[in-house]
Amino acid sequence: MMPQPPAALADVRALTFDVFGTVVDWRSSVIRESEALGERLGMTVDWAAFADAWRGGYAPAMDRVRHGELPWTRLDDLHRMTLDRLLEEFGISDALDEAERERFNRVWHRLDPWPDSVTGLARLRERYVLATLSNGNVSLLVNMAKRAGLPWDCVLSAELAGHYKRDPEVYQMAARLLDQPPERVLMVAAHQDDLQAAHREGFRTAFVRRPLEHGPDATPDLSVDPIFDLVADDFDDLADRLGLPGGPRS
Amino acid sequence: MMPQPPAALADVRALTFDVFGTVVDWRSSVIRESEALGERLGMTVDWAAFADAWRGGYAPAMDRVRHGELPWTRLDDLHRMTLDRLLEEFGISDALDEAERERFNRVWHRLDPWPDSVTGLARLRERYVLATLSNGNVSLLVNMAKRAGLPWDCVLSAELAGHYKRDPEVYQMAARLLDQPPERVLMVAAHQDDLQAAHREGFRTAFVRRPLEHGPDATPDLSVDPIFDLVADDFDDLADRLGLPGGPRS
Repeated sequence: MMPQPPAALADVRALTFDVFGTVVDWRSSVIRESEALGERLGMTVDWAAFADAWRGGYAPAMDRVRHGELPWTRLDDLHRMTLDRLLEEFGISDALDEAERERFNRVWHRLDPWPDSVTGLARLRERYVLATLSNGNVSLLVNMAKRAGLPWDCVLSAELAGHYKRDPEVYQMAARLLDQPPERVLMVAAHQDDLQAAHREGFRTAFVRRPLEHGPDATPDLSVDPIFDLVADDFDDLADRLGLPGGPRS
Repeated sequence: MMPQPPAALADVRALTFDVFGTVVDWRSSVIRESEALGERLGMTVDWAAFADAWRGGYAPAMDRVRHGELPWTRLDDLHRMTLDRLLEEFGISDALDEAERERFNRVWHRLDPWPDSVTGLARLRERYVLATLSNGNVSLLVNMAKRAGLPWDCVLSAELAGHYKRDPEVYQMAARLLDQPPERVLMVAAHQDDLQAAHREGFRTAFVRRPLEHGPDATPDLSVDPIFDLVADDFDDLADRLGLPGGPRS
């Protein structure tokens, strides 16, 4: 008998994925490329602190869009605003010309997947439509997928809604474009608030724990909200729990 | 030496594809599935005429949206309006209940690619970002790609612009989402007017001749507008002309 998903998830047809932290390891990737840049340009910087500060600028920058302080601005451009500020704060503003800044800013297009992402997605894709549902802009997500071999059926982005997660419009846009009632869409994320927002729009939810997202010394909140329909340790575990064949443990 | 594209196309980074007729053979696919349905339900109908009439309802239905007579309506729903009318006109309205109509209407999600489409796209994908740019709605294009194995990097649709081709907004939306100036995007289509509209927005253009789109007895206009940057006989020929390795003729 073909393995089956849990009964509550039997009608799910599409999976939507948070990307930064859930599918890709942004922190290690940004640190590694920053270190190489620093070496090439002869800069001595705490690149882990730099990466964390860059990512730390993300939520406040989106809030400026959300509250109307900025018009709709793509994540690439929010990243660039934060980058320019951090180069000043870290005292290395003179070291990078415009071309270097543009190239460095696109490190967010070149993030490496977690070790289980590509194999897990390949298994999940056998049964489900797989779509990103990320705050990254479309071109960022397309470039990332092409480089990393992420087998999306469809690249969906906050950019298409003109709203950033966790605004409800983003989830509603995804269900509408996938032509599925929200209860047939499973949101997959490593962040509780993303899943809670999806749940409020009627999505099913799967929490994938990524304890290393913020580095080996961080102690992220990995607590499980009882509303979550599924909890998994990685994408192969997620595929196992959805009853898909072909896993390393099956 | 790695083969090169023609000089005028050296800066192209992304290819956008018309889908119906250019990538998939809608007519044979619709006729074949219609015949099977007719046999199952005991209907005697000229299914080639039915398929041509169904496709023939496409432009007038889009014009109703374009002229504001209808609000934005997805292609699935335009197809369904045309289907309901044709079932009356062909005298078979009583034979199909609601569930059969819904299933039949989604034959447009189950179209077969031309024989060269999958292999040609795989070669083109080695160098370029490949995106649909179709009037089909996102879910239609995703279902079609999944079934047929079309290796898109990105599914772009008129649905995302709220405008149907050949409205300029559709091409502008594609360049914006791909984050490329239009002259770095090559529109690929079997229809001159699609390429002419893309050209007006600054795209490069490749005409792929599909003499069988309207069946073996049709005599479609295959004339070449001098504005076209490239003319090809199929997707393998297109890959050859763009200097990509790995073709059956290379």
